[in-house]
Amino acid sequence: MIKASVCLAALALASTTAAAQPSGTAQALERSFDAQISSADQLAWLQQMSSAPNHVGSPHDKANADFELALFKQWGWDAHIERFDVLYPTPISTTVELVTPQHIVLGGQEPAVAEDPTSSNTAGALPPYVAYQGDGDVTAPVVYVNYGMPADYDALEQRGISVKGKIVLARYGGGWRGLKPKLAQEHGAIGCLIYSDPADDSYAAADVYPKGGGRPEAGVQRGSVADMPTYPGDPLTPGVGATPNARRLTRAEAKTILKIPTLPISYRDATRMIAALGGPLATGKQRGGLGLAYHWGGSDAVQVHLAVKSDWSLKPVYDVIGMLRGAAYPDQWIIRGNHHDGWVFGASDPLSGQVALMSEAKALGALYRSGWRPARTIVYASWDGEEPGLLGSTEWAETHAAELKQKALLYINTDSNGRGFLSAAGSHELQHFVNQASGDVADPRTGVSSAQRGRAAILAGAYLGTDRDTPDVIDAAKSGGDLPLGALGSGSDYTAFLQHLGIASLNLGFGGEDESDGSYHSVYDSFYHVTHFDDPGLTYGAALSKVVGRMVLRAADAPRVPARYSDFAGAVSRYLTDIKKLAADQREKDRTLADLRREGDFTLAASPNDPIVAPADRGITPLVDMLPLENAVDHLKRAASAADAMLGREDGLPPATQSRINTSLAQIDQLLMDPAGLPGRPWFQNLVYAPGTLTGYGAKTLPGVREAIEQRRFDDARTYVGRTAKVLEDYANRLEAAAAMAKTP
Amino acid sequence: MIKASVCLAALALASTTAAAQPSGTAQALERSFDAQISSADQLAWLQQMSSAPNHVGSPHDKANADFELALFKQWGWDAHIERFDVLYPTPISTTVELVTPQHIVLGGQEPAVAEDPTSSNTAGALPPYVAYQGDGDVTAPVVYVNYGMPADYDALEQRGISVKGKIVLARYGGGWRGLKPKLAQEHGAIGCLIYSDPADDSYAAADVYPKGGGRPEAGVQRGSVADMPTYPGDPLTPGVGATPNARRLTRAEAKTILKIPTLPISYRDATRMIAALGGPLATGKQRGGLGLAYHWGGSDAVQVHLAVKSDWSLKPVYDVIGMLRGAAYPDQWIIRGNHHDGWVFGASDPLSGQVALMSEAKALGALYRSGWRPARTIVYASWDGEEPGLLGSTEWAETHAAELKQKALLYINTDSNGRGFLSAAGSHELQHFVNQASGDVADPRTGVSSAQRGRAAILAGAYLGTDRDTPDVIDAAKSGGDLPLGALGSGSDYTAFLQHLGIASLNLGFGGEDESDGSYHSVYDSFYHVTHFDDPGLTYGAALSKVVGRMVLRAADAPRVPARYSDFAGAVSRYLTDIKKLAADQREKDRTLADLRREGDFTLAASPNDPIVAPADRGITPLVDMLPLENAVDHLKRAASAADAMLGREDGLPPATQSRINTSLAQIDQLLMDPAGLPGRPWFQNLVYAPGTLTGYGAKTLPGVREAIEQRRFDDARTYVGRTAKVLEDYANRLEAAAAMAKTP
Repeated sequence: MIKASVCLAALALASTTAAAQPSGTAQALERSFDAQISSADQLAWLQQMSSAPNHVGSPHDKANADFELALFKQWGWDAHIERFDVLYPTPISTTVELVTPQHIVLGGQEPAVAEDPTSSNTAGALPPYVAYQGDGDVTAPVVYVNYGMPADYDALEQRGISVKGKIVLARYGGGWRGLKPKLAQEHGAIGCLIYSDPADDSYAAADVYPKGGGRPEAGVQRGSVADMPTYPGDPLTPGVGATPNARRLTRAEAKTILKIPTLPISYRDATRMIAALGGPLATGKQRGGLGLAYHWGGSDAVQVHLAVKSDWSLKPVYDVIGMLRGAAYPDQWIIRGNHHDGWVFGASDPLSGQVALMSEAKALGALYRSGWRPARTIVYASWDGEEPGLLGSTEWAETHAAELKQKALLYINTDSNGRGFLSAAGSHELQHFVNQASGDVADPRTGVSSAQRGRAAILAGAYLGTDRDTPDVIDAAKSGGDLPLGALGSGSDYTAFLQHLGIASLNLGFGGEDESDGSYHSVYDSFYHVTHFDDPGLTYGAALSKVVGRMVLRAADAPRVPARYSDFAGAVSRYLTDIKKLAADQREKDRTLADLRREGDFTLAASPNDPIVAPADRGITPLVDMLPLENAVDHLKRAASAADAMLGREDGLPPATQSRINTSLAQIDQLLMDPAGLPGRPWFQNLVYAPGTLTGYGAKTLPGVREAIEQRRFDDARTYVGRTAKVLEDYANRLEAAAAMAKTP
Repeated sequence: MIKASVCLAALALASTTAAAQPSGTAQALERSFDAQISSADQLAWLQQMSSAPNHVGSPHDKANADFELALFKQWGWDAHIERFDVLYPTPISTTVELVTPQHIVLGGQEPAVAEDPTSSNTAGALPPYVAYQGDGDVTAPVVYVNYGMPADYDALEQRGISVKGKIVLARYGGGWRGLKPKLAQEHGAIGCLIYSDPADDSYAAADVYPKGGGRPEAGVQRGSVADMPTYPGDPLTPGVGATPNARRLTRAEAKTILKIPTLPISYRDATRMIAALGGPLATGKQRGGLGLAYHWGGSDAVQVHLAVKSDWSLKPVYDVIGMLRGAAYPDQWIIRGNHHDGWVFGASDPLSGQVALMSEAKALGALYRSGWRPARTIVYASWDGEEPGLLGSTEWAETHAAELKQKALLYINTDSNGRGFLSAAGSHELQHFVNQASGDVADPRTGVSSAQRGRAAILAGAYLGTDRDTPDVIDAAKSGGDLPLGALGSGSDYTAFLQHLGIASLNLGFGGEDESDGSYHSVYDSFYHVTHFDDPGLTYGAALSKVVGRMVLRAADAPRVPARYSDFAGAVSRYLTDIKKLAADQREKDRTLADLRREGDFTLAASPNDPIVAPADRGITPLVDMLPLENAVDHLKRAASAADAMLGREDGLPPATQSRINTSLAQIDQLLMDPAGLPGRPWFQNLVYAPGTLTGYGAKTLPGVREAIEQRRFDDARTYVGRTAKVLEDYANRLEAAAAMAKTP
């Protein structure tokens, strides 16, 4: 679901230290594994699985699950399909019509492209729509709201433009899709249109499909607009699996379903509206890339009829689950997943990642049949229903929550994959583990390791000024050290594992040199597009299999899942520094605003072309006592160093001691969970990593504190300083206890 | 000629100290002056003078000079017209035709706009062209070169695209117009087209004319492409006046005339080419705002026929010169100028500033007739021929060089004027003088002083993130101190005074809330455009008259032209800090490049979509000994403080001492001149302020050193450290000598 290319996260890099590298036997195993990975396999599976629409509830979605199940069994896995019945609305009718200044029927299915054979195979496809919008039938004037994010509503308010009773027209980008109708309805809008502006995923960065991979003028991005920052999964069964007997909310009770009708449209359709809008000009970053002047609107010059009627029945999702039982620790699970449902054909999203997972499963099966047995149990999952709301993974994780909390040591996720550079995000004690694995896999284009190519690209991009890596990433690339992992927010199937259950998680993918932005969630996300513009020959599909496969093998067979706790402590320490700066900057900005308002400077500065009134007074951000957090982070850093030192020499310890230590640390990430969860969203219990309520996918670290400051809930900030400090102290105490075990065997 | 809106220079601000404020008598005089300033006068003159094309050599250009001469005489000035005969090419024929992929005739005169009455009055106008290009007739493939600046040629080279034998298509912006064909010919191109991209002056920032002021799709920017950074003025008479008996170069000998045919075109015409170009994509800041993918070209997909044939005869320019003789110091001149020639109707550029000058002249004349006599002589100049190359002012300054060096104390220039905020640039010892004058004039929209409104806009813009002021400007606005002056490069008539003769100079204008970018140098720079989108009612025209008139009155009547030398020393000190950082950063970047080339990182990073080879190795910037300059700046700062302290108490000195001090400081700016001039351009002798050879208009401060480092002429850098240190030491010594006079009267 999430775009790999929007993860500006870290690229993996080989470490100069070789600690915890696989043994000679393990290396031979990895060579055998690699020998089974085949791009030709992946191409064949991709073409087959993306040959027909495969959204939730479609025949081909079920066929793909059955196809995978058969393959898993054929490869020697203990596999089954697990079904959940979830609320998944599908459109019965969708209407977008320009009413004023003239009547034009807009919207509807995307047209076929001659070069792309599947693009005409849309008989079984749903029309462009967004899932979990609120059905309705409205006619109203249109207001352009740029990205439709909070800063855009500030800009509208400063110009005296209200969206109350209006239909907002938002462009994709700048924040997660689902926030656009949510913020629109909170501001009183009665409808929402979301369009793909060419500045963001078409001719500004690529040739237009099928000449290049850029979004064509009639291309539309579908997607989910469920309020997933509140909780993902089936809206009717928060916190529990959508099993036959589950207690279900009514649709009206479900907090994650929006209230206003919303549809996605193309920039061809949006141009009809933008060209006729009145009101003040939108300039700079508030306009897109169409060849005309953008106006905010505010008059009746453009009126639109928008209507959506949906079938709100339950639909089945089919998760394919395969297991290879661990020989030494059958109750320690290494889980690896990727979803299989798409919006239409889903060739890039998600099947490019799914076929990499299938390659791994085939190779692991071959090793298994040749006699190898993993020490730990390996679980491979092909999720359904990720697109509408992480349905398959969330319902599975909720259903098996107790068992997972007991057994799951690691969850590794992938999603769309493309050519380019490896990006990786996740639990930071795994940073070195990721860097080691990716340092051992060759980049398909250049033959050097993915790590080395990543480092070269970071440094070349920094020199040429074409990249936006942060200084810590550039410094890491320069020094040859491990590149930092990004933090996980949401947008793919790791969410329930990391943020609801507290299982250490990773999300990986290649990208940055593909053009899949232009086909994202459209009819044109096809085998033709992927093999021409995203990963021709699926060579990066094979590279992904090798990176992830290595991590699975190493995590399954090593004495323990490799972790370096000082990497986690260092990351948390940087996040705390960020938050302190955030609070100080916000306070300074509040003071400045008060000064400017008092002096009347906004009135004096108002331009005749675009008069702007003073931003509203929101008070002064108070000083919030961060000392408990500072103490906890200090404690964490010291405890992590001690634990890492101890683990570095653990091989000299008696096996029973080692075992006790491993057990005590195996699920340490669960200590980051607070059963009360985050303010207003108890499902999200991880106090270090969460998706932002106003970013949707983007991560907010130390979210209880950070978002409380950003959103000016200062009482919450104080409360969550304490709660967050407590989980970090617990984590530090656990590390210290483990280190103590080494001294008193 | 220059756009006021591109001067991101300082806004004037009232100082909290009231030193050297005018006396009560002087204040009464200023009130009388203000009472004579009339927007209605300015509107009438503007409509009359912009009613027909008034380029050099046109009947209406001469008629405007005669009209002004008659008015000056009527107002009591001793006025005359001074004529020079200069090489000024005018097009006999211009041809732009698309040859491939299809034949389409492009170019030609801009179409009339029904709402704009003068836009159809183009019978006497020249077609769109650029002056001092090289005639020729070529047919060749087109290469898009973005802004056509050095970084763009680097980008082309990294993609393996040559412009040799090609016609380049450059968009306006990113650097001065004339550099585009100059750099094109240096890179082997045989023709050059320059177009106005809508990202830069049309719908990205304004509604399109006549709905708003933005450039319409068929609008074309004319202009000069003479190599003015080498020398401005008549190409045949560098350094001497173009008088009847002047020794003239042949056209072939004139270094400032370019060699390849060049024409400006509209974005309607450019779209025909860009839409069909092949080769790699241009993205990010390398593309403009048209609604399509930009490609660099490099194939024969687009071929163009470009031909220009000009009449290269001499043409007359008519400067109108008026004088009010000084009663006390007739041989001390305060000079104030603005040009009167335009490219077509020239309503904004230059007549909006010209009518402000005329208002001042009328008001000064009225004061004179009522009995007031300035202490110093006031010279008002209405220049001709500024547009093609600062012809009228340069030839006048060169003709009267000896007298001016003896008599001229100050030159105050204006050019186009619009609504908004006062920007001011010039000799930094005048910074406080400017801030005092503008602090005493009310902003027409708000009634507070221009200074206060400027400060409010800086602070509001910084808060909202919509402005790009530098930290020193923001700090000055916050603290309520004087706002810094910008540094003068070129682009208007101060050039010969400041940079060839060493006369302290200022350039002033209101702007920032007008839309004159969209009419700049086009048929649509009209009375209609100015009165609808740039300065409706010419209220800012009146404000400009009041600011400049005050400065003229105060400079003419004060005991000496007010100066604060520590402001100059502070500015020079900041420039030296800049240069040291520039050199260090460049050295660091060179080292990084060497590392990346050695490691092969550019090859590894190369993208399949846009392969980029390593930038060329240009060696490592050496450490250049800046100590002589650091010593000189330190000396200058100390001497300036001492001189300012002395001048602050000079009223207690005997008149003869005061007079000696004033005489010694009156022309101190001439000490900044080095008779050898700058490397390769001896006409430019000021070692503190110059236009950049690769910016054209934009200032380069301490240019002998700064440009030598930027352009990797390190021997020049060493030489000019010494030469620049010497002029600054001379300046400091003069200040010390003046301070010493106070002690030994």
